[in-house]
Amino acid sequence: MKRIKKMKTNLWLIIFFLCLFSGRAQNGKVDKPNFIIIYTDDQGYNDLGCYGSEKIKTPNIDLMASEGLRLTNFYAQPVCGVSRAALMTGSYPIRVGEPNNIKMLHTVPDPQEVTMAEVLKSAGYATGLIGKWHLTGQGNSGPWSFDPATMPNAQGFDYFYGTPLFNGTTVYVEDTPSRSSILRNNDIVLDKVESWDHITKDYTWEAINYIKLNKDEPFFLYLAHNMPHIPLGASENFKGKSEYGPYGDAIEEIDWSTGEILQTLKDLGIDDNTLVIFASDNGPWVETTHSMIPGGKTFIPRDHSGSADPLKGWKMSAWDGGSRVPFIARWPGALKENRVSDEILTTMDLLPTIANLAGAEMPKDITVDGYDASAFLLGKEEVSPREDYLYYSGCLLTGVRVNEWKLVLPRSAKPDGLGWWGRLIEEVKTNQLYNLDKDPGETMNLADQNPDVVARLKKRIELARKELGDIDVTGEGARFFYDGPRRLQANLKK
Amino acid sequence: MKRIKKMKTNLWLIIFFLCLFSGRAQNGKVDKPNFIIIYTDDQGYNDLGCYGSEKIKTPNIDLMASEGLRLTNFYAQPVCGVSRAALMTGSYPIRVGEPNNIKMLHTVPDPQEVTMAEVLKSAGYATGLIGKWHLTGQGNSGPWSFDPATMPNAQGFDYFYGTPLFNGTTVYVEDTPSRSSILRNNDIVLDKVESWDHITKDYTWEAINYIKLNKDEPFFLYLAHNMPHIPLGASENFKGKSEYGPYGDAIEEIDWSTGEILQTLKDLGIDDNTLVIFASDNGPWVETTHSMIPGGKTFIPRDHSGSADPLKGWKMSAWDGGSRVPFIARWPGALKENRVSDEILTTMDLLPTIANLAGAEMPKDITVDGYDASAFLLGKEEVSPREDYLYYSGCLLTGVRVNEWKLVLPRSAKPDGLGWWGRLIEEVKTNQLYNLDKDPGETMNLADQNPDVVARLKKRIELARKELGDIDVTGEGARFFYDGPRRLQANLKK
Repeated sequence: MKRIKKMKTNLWLIIFFLCLFSGRAQNGKVDKPNFIIIYTDDQGYNDLGCYGSEKIKTPNIDLMASEGLRLTNFYAQPVCGVSRAALMTGSYPIRVGEPNNIKMLHTVPDPQEVTMAEVLKSAGYATGLIGKWHLTGQGNSGPWSFDPATMPNAQGFDYFYGTPLFNGTTVYVEDTPSRSSILRNNDIVLDKVESWDHITKDYTWEAINYIKLNKDEPFFLYLAHNMPHIPLGASENFKGKSEYGPYGDAIEEIDWSTGEILQTLKDLGIDDNTLVIFASDNGPWVETTHSMIPGGKTFIPRDHSGSADPLKGWKMSAWDGGSRVPFIARWPGALKENRVSDEILTTMDLLPTIANLAGAEMPKDITVDGYDASAFLLGKEEVSPREDYLYYSGCLLTGVRVNEWKLVLPRSAKPDGLGWWGRLIEEVKTNQLYNLDKDPGETMNLADQNPDVVARLKKRIELARKELGDIDVTGEGARFFYDGPRRLQANLKK
Repeated sequence: MKRIKKMKTNLWLIIFFLCLFSGRAQNGKVDKPNFIIIYTDDQGYNDLGCYGSEKIKTPNIDLMASEGLRLTNFYAQPVCGVSRAALMTGSYPIRVGEPNNIKMLHTVPDPQEVTMAEVLKSAGYATGLIGKWHLTGQGNSGPWSFDPATMPNAQGFDYFYGTPLFNGTTVYVEDTPSRSSILRNNDIVLDKVESWDHITKDYTWEAINYIKLNKDEPFFLYLAHNMPHIPLGASENFKGKSEYGPYGDAIEEIDWSTGEILQTLKDLGIDDNTLVIFASDNGPWVETTHSMIPGGKTFIPRDHSGSADPLKGWKMSAWDGGSRVPFIARWPGALKENRVSDEILTTMDLLPTIANLAGAEMPKDITVDGYDASAFLLGKEEVSPREDYLYYSGCLLTGVRVNEWKLVLPRSAKPDGLGWWGRLIEEVKTNQLYNLDKDPGETMNLADQNPDVVARLKKRIELARKELGDIDVTGEGARFFYDGPRRLQANLKK
């Protein structure tokens, strides 16, 4: 009270204090945009209205797309964990160094790897992760324990609220005796989630509060929804409301959530200083009796899984439906409205792109696979700096895309070295070549008609095997932080 | 980006915007202090270090007391629900109007009643409740459903996170098939809490975030811990760590929480503009075989319940241990340090006191039982404006205190009209008179030696019966908002 009265006597003192406590204005951070990455889980290429879904209604995300940029050739990685590793490190997961020199099927970046959060933090950003991390090592005290050194707070995030790993691997919660916790930083908020019905609403509240809490400084919010990964959930307003069962309900709630977040930016007056990106971590998780033991417990009902139409395949498969996902970017004033591009881009490019936009320095002496696509994003260039994408299933190199051409390498069905992941991989007997522009569903093998293209793409494969590695060879550019043997989690039996 | 660049061109524009978005400085709210009420559940008079506990360590709360005011004669009400009703409305619960003209054992204020949150909201305050509400009507769809019109958001709170009712009535969670939900505003965050271990930590995070979110405007935060009400819980750092079992663990975590909140105020530079009050809602819940059916399931182990020493009785009893609780207030600069007072004050006095300090108008045409004790609190007066306290068990008037004297009225044991509450009330055959200054444990009945005092206090009782009512009479000043019969939830069988 005493202090306050003194302040009232002098307007200049008030202004001084206001400037002191308003980092954005005072220290020149005013020109640093905020970044929000909304990353969904197992949402397929076709599972948004603006990507063609006829049953799932996503008016907020569709509007977001019409206000910004939508990409039709954007690649993540084909499985949750590796996809998040690529997003955070800007590199192919096989390049990323992992604890104990093991290249895992689900990449766990070594604490010495530099994450997007660390890069932005070094540039003065507040950094928050709300949602699914899934880049933590399993701890020694049970299936849901974890290693603090690989948790979000140790990897550049000031704030974390969500699941260290994932929500589950069964269709229904009751099918598994183990349940994920919800954590805030390293503190458990909830021991075991028994229902995922309220997770999207909860994350939305957390995200809105996070934005409000950090509106006065540049912030990076990574909102990694657990939905629509099984077990699915949706709250009262969405449960049973979509035309696409529990899967559609979950996505329609994410659409609502996205609308709430954009509205929050508007309400706070930071809408035109915030780049919001919406993407999915991989294709839809579609398991049918075709791809597994008949009648097995892992069968996922059709209304619990998404669609990659018109692409071929799904999560974990090496076809495009496994890794090509929706990508929408919105930043009023900075990005052109209603732009749709078929240029190639990947999650790995987001780190150097965002670093550039943030005025942050990329780590020196570290090779990343991402390109700085800021000029492309801002519409200063029509062409993406990226023209290729390598298809890795775990450490197995299964093919490459260069511009419109995709080469698919021969492989055995259900390769043993990929563990449970392998069961969704189909046999390929000979080299296959597809023109993805004309044939996105990978139906017409043009290898015989285009031996020169096959040869050219095989050269790219050889370069990749040399630099990044393959299941039978360690790449020269792959990172290892420890002495001792370099191992794969499981070797491919040949 | 465009908008931002424009702003940089003109310092005055920046100052203008800063003032615009900083309500506290711009519109004269700068002299409105913040209020935080930390309200624990079933914590006894003796369950803090500074009140005499030898086994429970509360260094943060003890320090808080030494930096401010500690009262030794502060009264709540003897049960959770009515206690919260008195705190929110500033009146004896029997005065408060309830839906359908029923006077409930657990008072549910009618939506037309004016709450502390509504009073402060009308004075420009942000108003948040984190924790236990327990003033909501039970809904029709099961034991944990509720009526939205009686929920916090309908009763003046902008923000709510916590339990609509309470956490449970059994010692262990597994003893009851029904579990509370956690809500954010009217949205369910978690369907059923299976463990209360992380609730205090969770609330602490929520409280810190709330303070940060609202630091730039005057705010009222009502942090109503579910702990140490059974079922008890404490997180890793506190579980099994105190010398007083699960009950001590829960309180020691609340002590940590209080320290974190005070530190947050310091970190934000709003420490000396914030009045923080710490109190409990009623005495400790101590059920032994003495007061219930031997071997009955409601037996509460000693290390799950607190202590009211040297007071007599416990929660629900009509002795002082049921309603006299700790009270600590801290406001650096405004309140004297290290002040201890034996003046009488009650939770009902906090509404008019806080309203005065906030520059808020108390509702007109409504009688409240609370006194404005701001001058006493600020140390401008040594004497509290209150000299009496009426002991109500539900609607049964069991006695009155005036200054040092307490008159206890005759009553039957386990009065039927009080339902389950009655089981903890012991028989009193004749008028009893105690000098609480000399005999806080109510051991020496001085009625025969002081017939004049008894007569004087009986007059106060008659005034109270007339104005507020009793279990067999409707008070003239008791509020009812509806036509039709005026009922008690249960009538006392005589």
